[in-house]
Amino acid sequence: MPTIVVDVMPKPEILDPQGKAIAGALPRLGFTAFEQVRQGKRFELHVEGEVTDQILEQARTAAAELLSNPVIEDVVNVAVLDESEASA
Amino acid sequence: MPTIVVDVMPKPEILDPQGKAIAGALPRLGFTAFEQVRQGKRFELHVEGEVTDQILEQARTAAAELLSNPVIEDVVNVAVLDESEASA
Repeated sequence: MPTIVVDVMPKPEILDPQGKAIAGALPRLGFTAFEQVRQGKRFELHVEGEVTDQILEQARTAAAELLSNPVIEDVVNVAVLDESEASA
Repeated sequence: MPTIVVDVMPKPEILDPQGKAIAGALPRLGFTAFEQVRQGKRFELHVEGEVTDQILEQARTAAAELLSNPVIEDVVNVAVLDESEASA
């Protein structure tokens, strides 16, 4: 089934306590390569049939209106998923 | 700053109540193109300097050991982000 991926991240100027907690935990577990971590959301929207431009536009609108909170979050990506990368 | 993206999704056989709630809300808002929705997580790991194979391997291990719960989640993607797509 074709899948549209929507990625939502906290805006750069917004504090991200989950990301901070992970950034603190990583070096304690031996992962020292990472300076900063941000945690956001990834949505997979499954579409019956083909992904038309109209459906992709619907996904963009849904991303802006329902899947993200524009006060604190940015929609960083809306794209059709490569089948090889699909999780379901 | 180079960024590694880690995408984590609930396993297909695991119930995803957030995804179900979104799938229920979309048609009420006029978005009728989507059959199923899954909600997962997206992590951005910021790296000082260049992303070497060793750092990418560290990110893969961290994704499996810290960023995901292997009982209920799959790491679906670990990749270096295109600068053009970066949110921070």
